[in-house]
Amino acid sequence: MNLVPYAQAIKRKYPEPVCLVTTIDEHGKPNVMTIGWWMLASVHPPMMAVSVARPYYSHGLIQRRREFVICFPGETMVEQVLICGAHSGRDTDKFAAARLTPQPATRVAPPLIAECMAAFECKLVAEVPAGDHTLFVGEVVASHVSEKAERRLFSLGGGKLGGL
Amino acid sequence: MNLVPYAQAIKRKYPEPVCLVTTIDEHGKPNVMTIGWWMLASVHPPMMAVSVARPYYSHGLIQRRREFVICFPGETMVEQVLICGAHSGRDTDKFAAARLTPQPATRVAPPLIAECMAAFECKLVAEVPAGDHTLFVGEVVASHVSEKAERRLFSLGGGKLGGL
Repeated sequence: MNLVPYAQAIKRKYPEPVCLVTTIDEHGKPNVMTIGWWMLASVHPPMMAVSVARPYYSHGLIQRRREFVICFPGETMVEQVLICGAHSGRDTDKFAAARLTPQPATRVAPPLIAECMAAFECKLVAEVPAGDHTLFVGEVVASHVSEKAERRLFSLGGGKLGGL
Repeated sequence: MNLVPYAQAIKRKYPEPVCLVTTIDEHGKPNVMTIGWWMLASVHPPMMAVSVARPYYSHGLIQRRREFVICFPGETMVEQVLICGAHSGRDTDKFAAARLTPQPATRVAPPLIAECMAAFECKLVAEVPAGDHTLFVGEVVASHVSEKAERRLFSLGGGKLGGL
């Protein structure tokens, strides 16, 4: 193998699975962001982790409410995922802009996204500074799936998204 | 969406990218494990996170040496990845068993894997208990790529692996 700059090597990370993460503000208004930095973190109890850039609007909402929902968009949701990744919830109602349907969750305040193929309600259990991001670890307290299974949506590199 | 048990919903996570993580013991003997729970964690400085089951041999090696290397196997490495996931470094020399070639890293003690398509040398910056696993966050201090780009190897569910 050859030593190269990180920016060159990291291009080999693709395809990267995409998630939509919902949050809620103190007035009960939901927000949603697109993220690629997500993983499973524990089997018993089930936990997931996401890494969120510190300036993001959702970053503060997760810290305050300590709840979030991780949703898997299917391959038909390219437009919605692009919209949720291109705007900030500070000045945009992204559920309206992306025509996403909030569906009440069962154990947390942030909503599910009715159009997604799976959703995991999470309660924050750990918060770890990591460079310019924060790792949020959530315990999964309820899980949901859509009727129909789809292929997951992935970031393919070069700004392209597609199902795999 | 419909409320279902977590074990049912999490089947929708696939495809999941696979990584090989190398470590080294106090006598300088390298070990390697297969993991699926990996993500990027920071842009500046670059960081990555992995979640490792607490009983794993590599778990203790990361804690003691505080260094590890995250490698991306390409689609041709199915057999090697299965071997590294099916045995423990406590009683198996997995580099030998899987016929992997350790290549000296530049900034850390654990080796690169010459057959992989990318490798990221990491120094441990945070360690977070998460249920039955531990999240290890590493700063990437050097990066490497193979001559030839390949498709990454993914876990496709049902014990199958394939390139995407």
